[in-house]
Amino acid sequence: MKLINEYKNTQTVEVEQLPKYIGETVTIHGSIYKIRKMKGFSFVLLRTKRNVLQCIAEEQLELPVEESCVRIRAKVVEEERCRAGYELHIQQIEVLSVPAEASPIVINQKLVDTSIENILDYRPVILRNEKQRAIFKLQEGICQAFRTFLMKEQFTEIHTPKLVQAGAEGGANIFQLNYFGQEAYLAQSPQFYKQMMVGVFERVFEIAPVFRAEKHDTSRHLNEYTSVDFEMGYIRSFEEIMQMETAMLKFTMEYLQEQYQKELDLLGISLPVIESIPAVRFKEAKEMISKAYKRPILDWEDFEPEEEKLLYELISKETGSEFVFVTHYPSVKRPFYAMECKENSEETESFDLLFRGLEITTGGQRIHGYYEQIEKMKQRNMNVELFESYLMMHKAGMPPHGGLGLGLERFTCKLLGYENVRYTTLFPRDINRLVP
Amino acid sequence: MKLINEYKNTQTVEVEQLPKYIGETVTIHGSIYKIRKMKGFSFVLLRTKRNVLQCIAEEQLELPVEESCVRIRAKVVEEERCRAGYELHIQQIEVLSVPAEASPIVINQKLVDTSIENILDYRPVILRNEKQRAIFKLQEGICQAFRTFLMKEQFTEIHTPKLVQAGAEGGANIFQLNYFGQEAYLAQSPQFYKQMMVGVFERVFEIAPVFRAEKHDTSRHLNEYTSVDFEMGYIRSFEEIMQMETAMLKFTMEYLQEQYQKELDLLGISLPVIESIPAVRFKEAKEMISKAYKRPILDWEDFEPEEEKLLYELISKETGSEFVFVTHYPSVKRPFYAMECKENSEETESFDLLFRGLEITTGGQRIHGYYEQIEKMKQRNMNVELFESYLMMHKAGMPPHGGLGLGLERFTCKLLGYENVRYTTLFPRDINRLVP
Repeated sequence: MKLINEYKNTQTVEVEQLPKYIGETVTIHGSIYKIRKMKGFSFVLLRTKRNVLQCIAEEQLELPVEESCVRIRAKVVEEERCRAGYELHIQQIEVLSVPAEASPIVINQKLVDTSIENILDYRPVILRNEKQRAIFKLQEGICQAFRTFLMKEQFTEIHTPKLVQAGAEGGANIFQLNYFGQEAYLAQSPQFYKQMMVGVFERVFEIAPVFRAEKHDTSRHLNEYTSVDFEMGYIRSFEEIMQMETAMLKFTMEYLQEQYQKELDLLGISLPVIESIPAVRFKEAKEMISKAYKRPILDWEDFEPEEEKLLYELISKETGSEFVFVTHYPSVKRPFYAMECKENSEETESFDLLFRGLEITTGGQRIHGYYEQIEKMKQRNMNVELFESYLMMHKAGMPPHGGLGLGLERFTCKLLGYENVRYTTLFPRDINRLVP
Repeated sequence: MKLINEYKNTQTVEVEQLPKYIGETVTIHGSIYKIRKMKGFSFVLLRTKRNVLQCIAEEQLELPVEESCVRIRAKVVEEERCRAGYELHIQQIEVLSVPAEASPIVINQKLVDTSIENILDYRPVILRNEKQRAIFKLQEGICQAFRTFLMKEQFTEIHTPKLVQAGAEGGANIFQLNYFGQEAYLAQSPQFYKQMMVGVFERVFEIAPVFRAEKHDTSRHLNEYTSVDFEMGYIRSFEEIMQMETAMLKFTMEYLQEQYQKELDLLGISLPVIESIPAVRFKEAKEMISKAYKRPILDWEDFEPEEEKLLYELISKETGSEFVFVTHYPSVKRPFYAMECKENSEETESFDLLFRGLEITTGGQRIHGYYEQIEKMKQRNMNVELFESYLMMHKAGMPPHGGLGLGLERFTCKLLGYENVRYTTLFPRDINRLVP
C-alpha cells in the first residue's frame, strides 16, 4: 500500500512566477511553438498553458522540431524589448515527445490563413495557434463571469436531463432516438426543468448543451450549442428579466477586462460599454426599419435576418448601444408557456436581445397559473395529458416567473467580431459536420 | 423606446440581510411552506431561496393555503428560541398565486416518508421539501468547489460536443440517432476532446452530461449523468493525476464546510477528513480481500460490487480512510488509449477511486505517442481510419498526459450517505425512467 498526497508542483515554475526569478535558472515545460534561426542563435517560442514565451537558444544547442514537447532549464533574463519584460536563455532541453509528422497546416503564424473548412477540419491542431485558442480562453471567461454574477444574485446552479420524453416543446426541430424501446428526444432547452426548479430555489441557472435538429445551413445556426439559461421567480414584470440580463452583461465586460486582458489584447478586442440597453416593441421596430430604409413589411410576425442588422444600425446610430431588446413578440410566434399581455393577448410579455444585429437571447415571463396554462394549451390543440409532469408544478403553485436562454457561441462570436458562429464554437455541429 | 437599466432589488429584503432589520418592518417574498395553527395565532413557515423562515400570524389575519406564493410585510422581532435568532411578525399578506390543488404527497414534514418511486414521480413538488432541495444545493457546492479548485490550478474550462460520429470509444453501451441521414452517437465521455485540448491548453476540464445505454438496473447506474472530467499534460507519472484528485477532494471538503454549512447541518452530514489517500494495486487488492474474507477469486480482471465494499471495510479499518485508489488495472479491461506499464504490458498506468465502497472515478495516463497508439489499435483489431481526427493530435505531437472522470451524482450520493444514486440525481434517467 502506498499513500497518495495532494498535488504540489515543486519541480517546475509557472509563467506567472517568472518575474520573481529574474537572474535565476528555472525548469519550465511547454511545446515548441516556433523556431526562428538567427545568426549564431535561435529564437524559440515556447507555448505554455496560457502564454507564448520568448526563449533564446545558442546554436550549439540541438533543438527538436516544432510542436515537440519539452522540459527546459533556462535562465530568466530581463529584456525590455520583450512584452513580458524578460526572456529565457535555454541551458538544457529535455525532449518529452516529438510529432510523428509536421502539421499539414501552418499553425504558428500570427493569423491562421486558410478557409473555414480547413480551420474546422484541422481543429485539434489549429487550436494550438495562439489567437485561435485565445477565443476559447475568453469563452471560459464569459462562462465564469456569468456564473459568478448569477451566484452573487443567489441563483442556484442545476443539472437537468438532456434525454427527454415525447412532447417536450414540440416542433419538428428535435432529434429523436430509441431509449430502451421508448421514443426519446434530445432536449432543445432546459425550459420545463428550470421552471420546475423555480418552485424549489426561486432562482436557478444552467450552462449546458442543447440540441436543435434545424436544417438551416447559415453562419449563425448550430445543431448543438451551449445554452446559458436562467429563470427567476417573484418578478413584478418581465422587465426585471431584462434588467437582470443587463446587469449580467455589464458584470461580464468588467470581469473580462479584469481577468482576461491578455486574450483581449491578443485578439485586439475592445469591449462594448454597457450602461443601459434600449428596448423597442416588436411592432414599433418593424415600423422603424420600414420607414428608415423604405422597406415594405412582408412578415408582421418575425424579423428577417436583414432587418435585425438594420435595427442594430438604427439603434446604434441613435443611442450608441450595440445591444437592443425587442419586446412584445406576437403570441403566435411564442411557445405555449409564454405569458400574454393583459391589455392585448396577441402580444407576449417576452423579448429577444440583439447584439450587433444578431439575436443572442430569447426570454420572457411564463404562465404560472394552472388553469390559464391548460386553457392556452387547449387553444393550441395540445394534448394536455402528455404534459402531466410539467403541469404538476403549476397545479402545486408557482410564483410569477420568467427567464431567458443565451447562446454562448453566438455571444462570443459577436463579442469577438466574427461573422460565423463556427469560429467561436470549439467543435461545431452543423447539418454537414459531425467531425472532429 | 425605453431604456433598461441593470437589475437592482430595492423593494424586498433578502434573508441574509434580516438580522440588520431587527425591530423594523420589511417586505419579503416566498412560498408558504407550512402553517401550524395555535391558540390565537399561527406559525407560518416561509420558504425562500435557501431558507425556511419562522413567521407569526395573528388569528385575525387571513392566511392562504400552503404552497401559495406571497409577498409579506412583517416586523423582524428578536427571538432567541428560533435558530435564526429572530422571527417575522406578519402585518400584511399579498397573495401572488395559490395552488390549483393540494399536493398529492406531503412535502412539508422533516422527512419525505414515501417510496423512491414516489419521490421520483413527484420530483417537481418533492424537491420543495427543505431536506430534498438541500441535496441539490450541496451538489451545486461540489461543482463550484471543483471548478474553483481547477481554475486555481490553471485548468481551462471547455465545452465539447455530445453528438459524435461512429466509432468513438465503441462498445454496445452507446445511444444512437439519426443525424441528417448520418449515424450519430451520444458521447459516453468527453475523452477524445479533452485529450485534444491538452495539446492546446495543457490542462482542461469539463462538467457536462454523458450518456450510457447500459441496461443495468441497479442502485448505482444511470443512463445519463454529470461527469466531472479533467485532463492534464506534462505528467511524470499517473500518480500526479491521483495527487491532483486528492487535492481537489480535500479542497472540496473545506469549501463545503465554509460555504454550505447550512445544508450540511440540515442533512446532518459530517464530511470525511482527507489527508492522504491510500492506493493499492488491483491484484493486491483482490488478494487482500480474498485472504481477509476467505473468498475465492472468481474474476482476475474486475471487481465484483461486493468486493468493492469489502475493500472499503478493510482499508478504512486499517487506515481510517474512506477513500481508496485501486491502481494498475488489467490492460484487457481498459480502453485502447490507456497507457500500459513499461515493466508489464498486462497492467495499465490507471486507477479507480472508490469512496465508501463505490467506484466514483476512473482515470489514468493515456498513450501520447502516435506509433504506439496505432500499434495498440491494430492489436485490438480496430479500424484506425475511423479515428483519423482523434489521431491528428498524436501525429502533431502530444505531451505525456492523463486525466479522470468523476460521476457527480455518485459522489454526492456517497458523500451524503444515500444508498441509491437516484436520490442525488435531480431528474434521473434509468432503463425505466424518462419522466419527469
